[in-house]
Amino acid sequence: MMFRATVLTLYPEMFPGPLGASLAGKAMGEAWSLDTVFIRDFTRDRHRTADDTPAGGGPGMVMKADVLARAIDAASPSDDPRPRLLMSPRGRPLTQGRVRELAAGPGAMILCGRFEGVDERIIEARGLEEVSVGDYVLSGGEIAALVLLDAVVRLLPGVMGHDQSGTEESFEAGLLEYPHYTRPQLFEGREIPAILTSGDHGKIAKWRRAEAERITRERRPDLWSAISAKKG
Amino acid sequence: MMFRATVLTLYPEMFPGPLGASLAGKAMGEAWSLDTVFIRDFTRDRHRTADDTPAGGGPGMVMKADVLARAIDAASPSDDPRPRLLMSPRGRPLTQGRVRELAAGPGAMILCGRFEGVDERIIEARGLEEVSVGDYVLSGGEIAALVLLDAVVRLLPGVMGHDQSGTEESFEAGLLEYPHYTRPQLFEGREIPAILTSGDHGKIAKWRRAEAERITRERRPDLWSAISAKKG
Repeated sequence: MMFRATVLTLYPEMFPGPLGASLAGKAMGEAWSLDTVFIRDFTRDRHRTADDTPAGGGPGMVMKADVLARAIDAASPSDDPRPRLLMSPRGRPLTQGRVRELAAGPGAMILCGRFEGVDERIIEARGLEEVSVGDYVLSGGEIAALVLLDAVVRLLPGVMGHDQSGTEESFEAGLLEYPHYTRPQLFEGREIPAILTSGDHGKIAKWRRAEAERITRERRPDLWSAISAKKG
Repeated sequence: MMFRATVLTLYPEMFPGPLGASLAGKAMGEAWSLDTVFIRDFTRDRHRTADDTPAGGGPGMVMKADVLARAIDAASPSDDPRPRLLMSPRGRPLTQGRVRELAAGPGAMILCGRFEGVDERIIEARGLEEVSVGDYVLSGGEIAALVLLDAVVRLLPGVMGHDQSGTEESFEAGLLEYPHYTRPQLFEGREIPAILTSGDHGKIAKWRRAEAERITRERRPDLWSAISAKKG
């Protein structure tokens, strides 16, 4: 089964962008597909207006519910089993768990917000799931959609081969990754830690686990508390 | 002063990608500049090897410290005032505060990790600041670098005009955005909330603040606690 992504955007030229290169690009048309829908094609006035001034005043522009409704209904009819996502800083933060769920499903319709945002009524009327990639403000949802798709596509069967496993395992356990080393043995006076070249796989695994825990504790007390709480 | 970005990558063809379109693209060469450095140009063997197997075993490949050192030193000599960033899921989570700091500075050197990661010794030896865009795993640092640059570039003088203000204000206060509405007045039986068309600007501001607080409380108890703690 192919993962089908349909992206609704005012900037279709941004896609596939970086997803056309590397392993994601090679797997396109096999493990996954990407269609873009140009929102402006669903306007009905001479000026192809997709946005309007916010009710109640204030800066910026708001994407119109009626135009978005036509674009969404064309891209994802009511019997489409795919989730309908809206990339938005107001959304639930994207996690590796949600990425895995999406990767196991049939695909996603992804609406990229621009300007101040979209008319709230389209979110309610079409049951859009708001997804945030982080606590910062982007110029629009397009790069956020690229983030989400890259994270999903690398998990699809046949895309990454064996390359994903390590990073994945570390995140599975909720820990940040342990430090990595490779040749040369000596770099600017710095040695690879002796334990890693000892050949003792038990000790190496233990060291890596301890390092992953130390780094998580030091850098992300929030993740560390969550793990400790789970262990109870 | 122009914001100068230099990106070190194994996939230079991914840049400027989506940053070449929209307002960021229009401001390129004026408000900001983007150079890419192809890491493979700094290898010294016939096969142009940029990565090697991890010391101690395990899946994946690790980017070599010696190759990266040569690429970094060429891109960002020791008197370069710009911060040296490494996009990595192990990094400190990117915040709008850090984005603002970067936008106020001279630019950034950005190293895009690939494979399992980079040799830890290059992080120490060149003082790399690890930056994470979120708690999910990407196929590499390239799309994370696009995220960071998009967030920074939209804040540079002359890039966005007045469009950024609303979203920005909401995040400044640590709150998620209030709901937006625009014409038509009636959409599929749903009205714009009457208060927004009342013309009473004091009431509108109060309603928006209350909605932003409600949405933050409901969706992001983590942010809400942080705000409440600050207020004391």
